[in-house]
Amino acid sequence: MFKHQKAGRGQDMIRHKMKIIQTETIFLFLLCVVLKMVTSKETLRNHRPWQGGRLAELSSSYCLSWRLAVETDNIHGWRTVPVQCLHDVEVYMLDGQYASDLNLIVEHIGNYVDGIVPSDDGFDAWIFDVDDTCLSNIFYYQGKRFGGDPYDPQAFKEWASRGVSRAIPQILQLFHKLILSGFKVFLITGRDETTFGQTTLYNLHFQGFFGFEQLILRSEAYKGQSGVVYKSEMRRKLVEQGYRIWGNVGDQWSDLHGQYVGNRTFKLPNPMYYVP
Amino acid sequence: MFKHQKAGRGQDMIRHKMKIIQTETIFLFLLCVVLKMVTSKETLRNHRPWQGGRLAELSSSYCLSWRLAVETDNIHGWRTVPVQCLHDVEVYMLDGQYASDLNLIVEHIGNYVDGIVPSDDGFDAWIFDVDDTCLSNIFYYQGKRFGGDPYDPQAFKEWASRGVSRAIPQILQLFHKLILSGFKVFLITGRDETTFGQTTLYNLHFQGFFGFEQLILRSEAYKGQSGVVYKSEMRRKLVEQGYRIWGNVGDQWSDLHGQYVGNRTFKLPNPMYYVP
Repeated sequence: MFKHQKAGRGQDMIRHKMKIIQTETIFLFLLCVVLKMVTSKETLRNHRPWQGGRLAELSSSYCLSWRLAVETDNIHGWRTVPVQCLHDVEVYMLDGQYASDLNLIVEHIGNYVDGIVPSDDGFDAWIFDVDDTCLSNIFYYQGKRFGGDPYDPQAFKEWASRGVSRAIPQILQLFHKLILSGFKVFLITGRDETTFGQTTLYNLHFQGFFGFEQLILRSEAYKGQSGVVYKSEMRRKLVEQGYRIWGNVGDQWSDLHGQYVGNRTFKLPNPMYYVP
Repeated sequence: MFKHQKAGRGQDMIRHKMKIIQTETIFLFLLCVVLKMVTSKETLRNHRPWQGGRLAELSSSYCLSWRLAVETDNIHGWRTVPVQCLHDVEVYMLDGQYASDLNLIVEHIGNYVDGIVPSDDGFDAWIFDVDDTCLSNIFYYQGKRFGGDPYDPQAFKEWASRGVSRAIPQILQLFHKLILSGFKVFLITGRDETTFGQTTLYNLHFQGFFGFEQLILRSEAYKGQSGVVYKSEMRRKLVEQGYRIWGNVGDQWSDLHGQYVGNRTFKLPNPMYYVP
């Protein structure tokens, strides 16, 4: 509505002009605020400062390289995850890529198994490692910054004694497929027999690992030996008993190197720790 | 400046009110346009449609798994890059991650070399593969969709005959470091001696690979043998001559498996093709 006003013509004009200027100013201010929001966002996106996203991006590229180098056995004897990769490893383990990697590997192991015709002599064998192959220690390593803290034998002993490690579902499925296909499955672990024998057996059974031929733990005689030497020796004994090792699955290269490694070895990812 | 007008008071007021409304409308319109730009951008970012970014994201997760499985030797005998990973492999090879991976591996090889004290008997040896280890075939594979097309022996023969493969700079640097450190460097390639002997030697020299002990190519006697068998045989001969193989670098697992592989093997990435 248009309202008639009593004030003089000059004053009236000034008031109206002022109103136009006020309106223009408010809208210009709002426009500036919105434009500032847009441009500052763009600036952040395109020219992130070194100490922020850009570093994270570079770090992620470095950490992808680090993980690849670890998984391809190009880096030996590392003790902790590099500090700039702690977040990357955590994200890798929890946000789906680790699971995606396991899915694909187990799919390919399955295809390989399907191509084998086991004989009926009962000597077709398959080998799995236990820790982070059959049973996941991810909840333990969550408390150790996913490999950011150095190996803590006492804390790991306490964790393993609880027998609460979860089955890695993809491997549990493969395990049952192998047993149903007629393979004799052997679990070979570096865990100490006296300390962890009963707990490990209980943990495996409780998590659904039934029907394997033997759980082989480290006895007194092999204490202090490297994984490569100890596991080669355990496999040698199986081969001498007449077993044909068709496949060998582990998360450490020390599970898969050495003697009598089997017809095919499969490396599961583990960027959290290194066992020599 | 304020300008006195002759029009009647009512008309004057209407004109000024109209001007306020016009100004408000223009600014409101501009504000709406800018707000629309911001919100539509955010929508695009947060709710990508399935057939776009989200699919690419999922595909990328699968392709990361595929590349890891290939590099860890969990997949054997593959012939072409999976179609959904063609873009991923191209980006990997060209956009810096491949270079970053090479940098890290060669840095770790360098650290390993620094820890070796070569003897002065001249029998400390190092082995490199040639294709995609010393010399890059990336320009050739660019024309083959970075591994999307199956192996084309005739086309590769033509490419190799041109002798224009470029040095992989990180490896060239390592090569010179080894020679300066007193190692005898052997290059072992599956390339046919009769067809490619001269061109390969020329290509290597032209790219800066001088001073190696021997370039070993596949002679008639080893034609048709798998990479693992042929290269094991070549290494056996070196070991029988008294050489100590400290390191062995290749882009294929067939360079690094078999007998007499050396004290340490180093797997360079190559998601473009598989040599049995």
